[in-house]
Amino acid sequence: MYILVINGGSSSLKYQLFDMDTRKVLAKGLCERIGKGGRMRHNAVGRNKLEFDIDIPDHTFAVRLVVKKLTDPQYGVLKDMSQIGAVGHRVLHGGQWFSESVVIDDDVIAAIERCIPLGPLHNPANLMGIRACATVMPGVPQVAVFDTAFHQSMPKSSYIYAIPYKYYEKYAIRRYGFHGTSHRYVSGRLAEIMGVKPEDFNCIVCHLGNGSSLCAVRGGKCFDTSMGLTPLDGVEMGTRSGALDPAVVSTLCARLGKDASYVVDQILNKESGLLGVSGISSDFRDVNAAADEGNERAILARDILVHTIRHYIGAYAAEMGRVDAIAFTAGIGENNAALRENVTDTLGFMGVKIDKVKNLNPDRKEELEITAPGATVRTFVIATNEELMIALDTERLIKA
Amino acid sequence: MYILVINGGSSSLKYQLFDMDTRKVLAKGLCERIGKGGRMRHNAVGRNKLEFDIDIPDHTFAVRLVVKKLTDPQYGVLKDMSQIGAVGHRVLHGGQWFSESVVIDDDVIAAIERCIPLGPLHNPANLMGIRACATVMPGVPQVAVFDTAFHQSMPKSSYIYAIPYKYYEKYAIRRYGFHGTSHRYVSGRLAEIMGVKPEDFNCIVCHLGNGSSLCAVRGGKCFDTSMGLTPLDGVEMGTRSGALDPAVVSTLCARLGKDASYVVDQILNKESGLLGVSGISSDFRDVNAAADEGNERAILARDILVHTIRHYIGAYAAEMGRVDAIAFTAGIGENNAALRENVTDTLGFMGVKIDKVKNLNPDRKEELEITAPGATVRTFVIATNEELMIALDTERLIKA
Repeated sequence: MYILVINGGSSSLKYQLFDMDTRKVLAKGLCERIGKGGRMRHNAVGRNKLEFDIDIPDHTFAVRLVVKKLTDPQYGVLKDMSQIGAVGHRVLHGGQWFSESVVIDDDVIAAIERCIPLGPLHNPANLMGIRACATVMPGVPQVAVFDTAFHQSMPKSSYIYAIPYKYYEKYAIRRYGFHGTSHRYVSGRLAEIMGVKPEDFNCIVCHLGNGSSLCAVRGGKCFDTSMGLTPLDGVEMGTRSGALDPAVVSTLCARLGKDASYVVDQILNKESGLLGVSGISSDFRDVNAAADEGNERAILARDILVHTIRHYIGAYAAEMGRVDAIAFTAGIGENNAALRENVTDTLGFMGVKIDKVKNLNPDRKEELEITAPGATVRTFVIATNEELMIALDTERLIKA
Repeated sequence: MYILVINGGSSSLKYQLFDMDTRKVLAKGLCERIGKGGRMRHNAVGRNKLEFDIDIPDHTFAVRLVVKKLTDPQYGVLKDMSQIGAVGHRVLHGGQWFSESVVIDDDVIAAIERCIPLGPLHNPANLMGIRACATVMPGVPQVAVFDTAFHQSMPKSSYIYAIPYKYYEKYAIRRYGFHGTSHRYVSGRLAEIMGVKPEDFNCIVCHLGNGSSLCAVRGGKCFDTSMGLTPLDGVEMGTRSGALDPAVVSTLCARLGKDASYVVDQILNKESGLLGVSGISSDFRDVNAAADEGNERAILARDILVHTIRHYIGAYAAEMGRVDAIAFTAGIGENNAALRENVTDTLGFMGVKIDKVKNLNPDRKEELEITAPGATVRTFVIATNEELMIALDTERLIKA
């Protein structure tokens, strides 16, 4: 079966086409600047690539374009559209309605709409992708895979903020957590690699990219995670502050004469994190290079990142009481050996010890154990693969 | 030498008179409802107590009243005012200017004034106490002991929030931490009791009261602490939320049609925490009793408290890399054995193990080790004594 995985943004649409027999990506690409001009990148993996400007008025047009390229005699990988057995969509916010992936029907669409207040930027864009696929590929089953679903297993003491309870009841203000598909994939791979049953297994997944979150997984289920009501909570990120004294928000409002939505949406989401502290870049590679050259604020931005990652690893160990493994994943987690060494340097007290040579990963393996002899907690680098997870969920639900 | 310790609030003034030869409190009391009527409680320790309504128009009048009672033939403990060798004041916020206690002069008063934006409620009240004493007891040396001073040793990666750096430079927005006098006292006592040099010693102090904060002490100096720019940061408290996704602030603003200062000052500072979650009380004793009777929201409020305390203990262990001892102090920390047992229950992974029988502290000892055999981290209950610490600082500085 061929499965198309779609990640719809407000002015973009990413796609990957999987052959589920081999679990390989046949083609992938991106439509961007939708409604504002338009550009497409298409990569028939191992065969050819193309990139061109084209007017893309809306998401439906974008999906038509994707199907056209996938079935193009020269650049395509399929004979015709009917070979696409199902479409899997990444959906940001499933609120409290979805603790797992689901086949999309009218009720599911209505529930994703009800979650728009929780994911005001992403959920409408995800819905545009879903509706575009329904228009272009009528009759092809679609599945929604939620970024929040894996975290719905958290106990209440992890997800209830210590604010008046009525705001949870009335407005559903609570910790949701994001990157759930990545945390589920990586923690599942860890259990497979270690040959243990997920239900007997505790781990901490450090998903460190432009957006970063850590997840405490106990018995195969999410026990706590660092992102919260929104992806702003937790550790320092590319442009996001992470968790703060809430009085920082009111103090910034007062000092700048701005309202809370400006401070949170603009300053804390877009101007903070590595970018805000270093003044250099939101990209850890740039910050890291500047720090290596002695730039003081770049060093500080990097130190804060290390500090906040350690903070959550220790916190999750103490909350769960036992950790069997730690995994590093996503852009920074997979590619920055020095950061992994630095973070784990203080974790000997809890049995973490890494092999500094293995940690360099000279062969760029996608799955690598970096545990040193004598460690009681095993440490891994695992390349995340949210798209494959979405494709696998889609296949499983369509076959059921 | 006799030293008077003053804690000036906006409409109250607390005092304790110490005999520094014995380090004992001779008398203590409280003037309250200053400017709004007035009431005084006075306790000549071990001799007699009295409580009465009296019109107290301002703090100067309150200090006169205190001196009058201290030297009263019937209720007093001093022959005359000249026996008071010095006055030590608790001052909330020393900003970045004070990393230790100081003898008060005009420059110090000016600096405390400059810190008013950081401590808008407390610093003006503290200054009223200082000025009242200067008026009533001219020539008697005064010392300021700052709640923030102990935390000034934090490294930048602990105290810089991951927001644009210019807001630290322009507005001094950073983590300050509070309860510093308590954390210094308790961590100092721990080193004394254990017979180790502070500089070789790492510990975590859990100051758990109506306001709560944890402090990571490395080599005798503060390395990190859970309160931040204001006392709102960190763990769940009586009426305070602790650290949050900053987007909770903007979401509450939008939902309620209120501005950030209302949400932070009123909702998150006064209606949240144990009170907000349980709907019962801000007093942990009430919440605990209701939880023991099965009240679900009281159980949740208590579970969140345990969860957030564990979170910071683990976080600080990971940040420092080594912990030699943990201490519980302040109202909840000293008096609730079940909470101590519950918090430490998951900390075996880091070498913490307590003796459940000793932990009950049937003799109500003020300093008690509760470590179980086999533990590698020692655990203590230590009664805090901020007033004694203030008196000792005052004596030391006056004699120098």
